[in-house]
Amino acid sequence: MRPSSSARERGRGPLAGLRVVEVSAFVAAPLASMTLAQLGAEVIRIDPVGGGIDHHRWPETDDGTSLYWAGLNKGKRSVTLPLDTPEGQREAADIICADGPGAGILVTNLPARGWLGYEQLSARRPDLIMMRLRGDHDGSPAVDYTVNSASGFPHATGDEPAPVNHVLPAWDIAAGLYLTVGLLAAERRRQATGQGQEVTLALSDVMLATVGNLGYLADVRINGASREPIGNSLYGAFGRDFATADGRRVMVVALTTRQFRSLGRATGLTEKLELTGPLMDVDLTTEGGRYTARHAIAAVLEPWFASRTLAELRSVFRDSGVLWGPYQTFRQLVEEDPRCSTENPLFSWIEQPGIGTLLAPGSPLVFSADPAPAAAPAPRLGADTEAVRAREEPARS
Amino acid sequence: MRPSSSARERGRGPLAGLRVVEVSAFVAAPLASMTLAQLGAEVIRIDPVGGGIDHHRWPETDDGTSLYWAGLNKGKRSVTLPLDTPEGQREAADIICADGPGAGILVTNLPARGWLGYEQLSARRPDLIMMRLRGDHDGSPAVDYTVNSASGFPHATGDEPAPVNHVLPAWDIAAGLYLTVGLLAAERRRQATGQGQEVTLALSDVMLATVGNLGYLADVRINGASREPIGNSLYGAFGRDFATADGRRVMVVALTTRQFRSLGRATGLTEKLELTGPLMDVDLTTEGGRYTARHAIAAVLEPWFASRTLAELRSVFRDSGVLWGPYQTFRQLVEEDPRCSTENPLFSWIEQPGIGTLLAPGSPLVFSADPAPAAAPAPRLGADTEAVRAREEPARS
Repeated sequence: MRPSSSARERGRGPLAGLRVVEVSAFVAAPLASMTLAQLGAEVIRIDPVGGGIDHHRWPETDDGTSLYWAGLNKGKRSVTLPLDTPEGQREAADIICADGPGAGILVTNLPARGWLGYEQLSARRPDLIMMRLRGDHDGSPAVDYTVNSASGFPHATGDEPAPVNHVLPAWDIAAGLYLTVGLLAAERRRQATGQGQEVTLALSDVMLATVGNLGYLADVRINGASREPIGNSLYGAFGRDFATADGRRVMVVALTTRQFRSLGRATGLTEKLELTGPLMDVDLTTEGGRYTARHAIAAVLEPWFASRTLAELRSVFRDSGVLWGPYQTFRQLVEEDPRCSTENPLFSWIEQPGIGTLLAPGSPLVFSADPAPAAAPAPRLGADTEAVRAREEPARS
Repeated sequence: MRPSSSARERGRGPLAGLRVVEVSAFVAAPLASMTLAQLGAEVIRIDPVGGGIDHHRWPETDDGTSLYWAGLNKGKRSVTLPLDTPEGQREAADIICADGPGAGILVTNLPARGWLGYEQLSARRPDLIMMRLRGDHDGSPAVDYTVNSASGFPHATGDEPAPVNHVLPAWDIAAGLYLTVGLLAAERRRQATGQGQEVTLALSDVMLATVGNLGYLADVRINGASREPIGNSLYGAFGRDFATADGRRVMVVALTTRQFRSLGRATGLTEKLELTGPLMDVDLTTEGGRYTARHAIAAVLEPWFASRTLAELRSVFRDSGVLWGPYQTFRQLVEEDPRCSTENPLFSWIEQPGIGTLLAPGSPLVFSADPAPAAAPAPRLGADTEAVRAREEPARS
């Protein structure tokens, strides 16, 4: 263990013994297998010689090393092979279909045809588990950005009817985690029955399922409603942003009546806040009532926030029961937020080849009996080709 | 199988035999156990009599039935107990710690103390697996909205420096799926060793890990950069929105050189697009080059899009290799998108008690050997209390 790493106990992780091969690019599929690596699985990423199409994705360093690639391939082994030749394809299939009870698992977002088809590979290892991400359920191409534009969310974001894209690749992240869930479910099944299978996931189905799960499809169909943009306000409860005296903004939320009362107590504005109920003819003990009265509630609170600095708010709200937090840029997150440091056992310092010393997250999941490994750097492209070829076990730090 | 349900084969699902108890509210924890139910697990949600604090969350119907609650509790069994009394707590613990190799699994986002503490419950069933979601890693409260404000993403969203909140509860969704991953990893381990454990996950750690995984922490630390808002443009590649002749907007993306060439071919603008390389002194065969030239590229494309309707674009772009899609409101998603219908095997029609006929998604994961059940309605609150008390198996549709 590195001296600078956190106090959280580290171990091999609950998924030690699982061996996953990844032939993929971009966000979702690499995140799926990295999530497994962070829980102790051996993950081998196979790329074409020279790197996949995501090897130079931005953000990158001044000399062109991708920070993005380093972030999404932490703790994996890297193999490069001439995947456009029969020899390279045969060797990749050897690695995918290697013996071992926890092996024979592939994650890919490439077109599953030719040597990468389920039929071809499962002929080599009949209990193969193949996780395959695609765009639409019918095989049409789709990416996070085109799935998002269709989702309804951009038209409900911001203050104006014009669509606003999210910046977080949320559909890719959800899809990557769904792939991880599907892989573990299929492997559980294989342990019980000996049977492998192909598991497919369409990125746009992740979006459609989510929009349905959150009630928005029903809202259209049953209520004839389609969510309008309401800026930074919460829908159906009280919550929005406020400006502070020192030019910062904070998000303030009261989902429960208790949180709403805490807000009144901490600001000393309980009486005025209670007046907004009769003012707007609503019951302030309901989420919906507080939502309906949100402009009146905000009018009471705005001057209070505007006359205090962020530091003063931190002091007033400490242990107050108020649910709030500052807005931070990425820089402020890194420089001001103690959760984004080795004070938080999520993080360790790693030496990332070609980049330098980085604060890197491990798995956010904390297992009391099977502690996960600390954050590990991403490999240099192709660094493990010879070792994997020679069937050497991965080195343990 | 319902006559109206899709042609996809339906089965018990890969997780048949798993039995999960949920004591929770809001989005992440309910999504975690619903994800398992959609793959065939038996999920029992225990609520206080009268319902949990999320039982009336918006959106709701005119008569106050929550479409949100119905969406996040599909396919579960519902038990209500007086959880503020020792008798109710004892009965809940009985249900959580029931015998059975696939049972003894709890998902909660409530404070794990008193009867709901891991020590108390694991004294009853030593191999208990307890999945516990909290706000911050140190136990401080946090919700999606306050985690999001801290993440850096709102300040990089939209066109202006002022923060813009996402509307999708993306951190809750990622946290729910991480919980599902952690649960399956812990259960895999329990099958191997007989040992249960407590697995905790902090919502803010999900955010911090994600910001790190995507390279944004390194971007600050190594490059001294902090992403600025760039509207609906993609960062580091070509992609943005364009207005059409009929008042719609479309998202157009060219991540790869092949996609960029397809865009030139389909629009007939190849020559002009190629001129933007020398114009902006960039290599258009790189993602970064196309990003740097994005305003010039967009200037070439804008009039082309502005003189065509959405229907014309659909026709021109069909099978063209262009990666694009229309922006849709939630209403347009429901009314115009064929993926949001039973043409897509993700969806089935269900009869949702108290609400009516709904188009509901099942699991987006498709298992070739263990097909998942079709979408099932959410229970009426408390509907299964007597059956679970009498240890009756769930009914299978």
